[in-house]
Amino acid sequence: VVPIESLTAPNRNVLILLADDLGLELNCYNNTVIDTPNIASLAARGVVYKNAFTSVSSCSPSRSAVLSGLPQHQNGMYGLHNGYHNFNSFKEVRSLPLMLKEAGIRTGIIGKKHVAPENVYPFDYAETEENNSILQVGRNITYIKQLVRYFFQSMSPKQNFFLYVGFHDPHRCGHTHPQYGSFCEKFGNGEPGMGVISDWKPRYYNANEVIVPQFVQDTPASRRDIAAQYTTISRLDQGVGIVLQELKAAGFLNNTMILLTSDNGIPFPNGRTNLYVSGTVVPFVLSSPYHTEGWGTVSQSYASLLDITPTVLEWFGVKFQKYTIFDRHVHLTGKSLWENTSCEAVYGSHSLHEITMYYPMRMVHKLNFTYIENLNFMMPFPIDQDFYLSPSFQDLLNNSATGQPTYWIKTLKQYYYRPRFELYNLTRDPDEVNNLAYDENYLAIRSQLQELLHRWLVDTWDPWRCYPQAVLEDAGPYKQNPVCMELLNGL
Amino acid sequence: VVPIESLTAPNRNVLILLADDLGLELNCYNNTVIDTPNIASLAARGVVYKNAFTSVSSCSPSRSAVLSGLPQHQNGMYGLHNGYHNFNSFKEVRSLPLMLKEAGIRTGIIGKKHVAPENVYPFDYAETEENNSILQVGRNITYIKQLVRYFFQSMSPKQNFFLYVGFHDPHRCGHTHPQYGSFCEKFGNGEPGMGVISDWKPRYYNANEVIVPQFVQDTPASRRDIAAQYTTISRLDQGVGIVLQELKAAGFLNNTMILLTSDNGIPFPNGRTNLYVSGTVVPFVLSSPYHTEGWGTVSQSYASLLDITPTVLEWFGVKFQKYTIFDRHVHLTGKSLWENTSCEAVYGSHSLHEITMYYPMRMVHKLNFTYIENLNFMMPFPIDQDFYLSPSFQDLLNNSATGQPTYWIKTLKQYYYRPRFELYNLTRDPDEVNNLAYDENYLAIRSQLQELLHRWLVDTWDPWRCYPQAVLEDAGPYKQNPVCMELLNGL
Ligand SMILES: [Ca+2]
Ligand SMILES: [Ca+2]
Ligand SMILES: [Mg+2]
Ligand SMILES: [Mg+2]
Repeated sequence: VVPIESLTAPNRNVLILLADDLGLELNCYNNTVIDTPNIASLAARGVVYKNAFTSVSSCSPSRSAVLSGLPQHQNGMYGLHNGYHNFNSFKEVRSLPLMLKEAGIRTGIIGKKHVAPENVYPFDYAETEENNSILQVGRNITYIKQLVRYFFQSMSPKQNFFLYVGFHDPHRCGHTHPQYGSFCEKFGNGEPGMGVISDWKPRYYNANEVIVPQFVQDTPASRRDIAAQYTTISRLDQGVGIVLQELKAAGFLNNTMILLTSDNGIPFPNGRTNLYVSGTVVPFVLSSPYHTEGWGTVSQSYASLLDITPTVLEWFGVKFQKYTIFDRHVHLTGKSLWENTSCEAVYGSHSLHEITMYYPMRMVHKLNFTYIENLNFMMPFPIDQDFYLSPSFQDLLNNSATGQPTYWIKTLKQYYYRPRFELYNLTRDPDEVNNLAYDENYLAIRSQLQELLHRWLVDTWDPWRCYPQAVLEDAGPYKQNPVCMELLNGL
Repeated sequence: VVPIESLTAPNRNVLILLADDLGLELNCYNNTVIDTPNIASLAARGVVYKNAFTSVSSCSPSRSAVLSGLPQHQNGMYGLHNGYHNFNSFKEVRSLPLMLKEAGIRTGIIGKKHVAPENVYPFDYAETEENNSILQVGRNITYIKQLVRYFFQSMSPKQNFFLYVGFHDPHRCGHTHPQYGSFCEKFGNGEPGMGVISDWKPRYYNANEVIVPQFVQDTPASRRDIAAQYTTISRLDQGVGIVLQELKAAGFLNNTMILLTSDNGIPFPNGRTNLYVSGTVVPFVLSSPYHTEGWGTVSQSYASLLDITPTVLEWFGVKFQKYTIFDRHVHLTGKSLWENTSCEAVYGSHSLHEITMYYPMRMVHKLNFTYIENLNFMMPFPIDQDFYLSPSFQDLLNNSATGQPTYWIKTLKQYYYRPRFELYNLTRDPDEVNNLAYDENYLAIRSQLQELLHRWLVDTWDPWRCYPQAVLEDAGPYKQNPVCMELLNGL
């Protein structure tokens, strides 16, 4: 990736294609079973990042980080926004759409939003779950096509745009709409009661042929689950194709930066809601019509969803104006991917998902190591309502209960009860099962990563940075110089 | 207390005097050292409840329960509203001020609000921390007098009112404004740099003479801390006197229901943020000009801050209209104190306080027993930023660290690490130190209280009611019939 030629180039637009819970089940990530030709075409016009991570493996927190450039602990979206979870970003947050709107760029969102409040995340054009059925606006690719077309048709001449298309595919829907299948893979497929999405030609897969990720147990139940996921991914892939077709038809293909990515990892065991690689690695395809020399290449550089805000700002030549939240200075810790230097580390920060799922974790990847701190480590890792009912988790649960082999990389007990600190050597142990945090030979690397992580937590004003062994004091005389004060609770 | 003669009586008004972190340090609760003549005068015109409890010992959650009649887990205010804690009630909540406003009653709030969003808790007249300094609007009783006077002067003839005065006294301020002393007991006392509150004549106490509650360690440090608290209570008491004087001068004394209470227990060890009696018992003085036969009496009946909404509604003859939150029916589980029958049980529900202080607890008092469930019991009980810096806690911490006697009813380790279930016989063990939850002789009472508690949690749609051993499924096919599904995590 080369630097942007000019920060003030006219006719620059941005199209974000955000999938929901999509992992690396794509041709461009070497999956040869699934059929995702449209995303493959996009990859041929861009760079495929193989080490791209979300900072948090949970919908609203991740989307808030994408749209603010701030981790969840800094923007306030500590967990899901919807229903009784009720999380919101701080009203002081200055989001990407807000900054772009102020810079005169037309902003649009079509599909899943899942962040709030409205005045923090304003879009000039908004067709989301707030004013539509989420199934229609997020999964009906024919409806999405019409909305995208309307957005382009209603552009003023010479105006630039930032369009964010939030596909709801391939998110599970088994716990809310089981009639459509575990992944809503039947929704709109033309079968009786399923409705019709005229632009979608469902692809079906043989469960025996799907590729089971290493971190998922290989059983008939999980294979059927993955086959359903693949079918839903076919709707996503065809939706991507349609949106790109609309972009081209509207004449914007040659001046639009396109990013395809996902908010979090796949909703399978060890995946979503975890900070393991399996929960945080996301597809990341960045395409620029001005960077044809990179087309079709693969990058091993780290990328983070926290990089999206600085990358888009630089693309538009909009300078980030420092601001304050609670009188504390905010700057972006992600970096523009148009810069030549690549990141040395990527960070993760998770607090909750559902309101009852308190399990703060902090993470850093560097030098092919993963370092994780589990703050509520004495309690079992929590399970979300959606994942709990999934065929793959039910399979694990049932086999664990009856003492049958689970064929999983860990036991359910190990999954629930985690050490406070975790350190993995991804080169030798890509599944992150051999914890080196308590191995004397790795004390130096552990210390180095711990220090790096805590520097980032301080830099991003993490309210949890003293937890659980100390109390953060940051008011009154400690306002400018916050300190951690020991609790003497034995931790 | 006798029933209200007529639900449609004209000229009925309500004055709520809500203290902040006030306990039973009052003459009318048999404290003979402190001097609180104004509250004593009010008590002479009302009933003093000796078994009144907040449902949650935390500011915003308690205030949201007062103003909605719903426990924190049902109204969404799971923790503090301010700063990075950022909790808010659900926008669907229909609060007391909203219902009264719709009934044509003029609503006013003066002082500490600490609940949100605005459209859930609207007041016709509002002078709060949102548009004032909290120290001025909450502790400067001369300023409060002027605001109350203005509120009364601006009443339309024949209009009824609901006025909520949220004193910030005697809340600690040591971690935000240490220059004014641990309880802001110097703020406005006329000393250099302290400013002047002309209506306040500070009362000072000899540390040797204060009454140390049983649940606080009796040491020189805690005695000085209590003496400072008493001085601040003198500002509150004189403020109460001034507000009642304004009420009388405006001609409303003889048609106004007056309730003096506190949002939560005292900010001392074992107090605030706990569901023990020491953290939840609150002063509760209910005065009605139409119920003179009860004046000066004491009631041993249970009362809950959850009873305030139904009590005020009945006073005004405003019928509670059932409504839904997330499509689920809401009804009030508190009861009007104007009814002759008294409550058999009172309930408690705490989830967080500060955002990092996740420690959900559920509680019921019945038959002079306390039953508590600690949901995050494996982790240490969390300590808040304000309390941590308090002289009393620092005293405990320092003595514990150096192995000195603490003179406390429990060890710091016991305080941090709690059993999952707690059961206390308040008759024999008022300090709640002898846990009977695992005593075979008390299995029947434990089961009875557990069942009672869980019936209330179901009745109030507690999202945590399956936690931590199961997942609540309440969407899709489970929407009308939610179920707890086992996690097999050994709990
Ligand atoms: Ca997602
Ligand atoms: Ca309080
Ligand atoms: Mg592909
Ligand atoms: Mg008194």
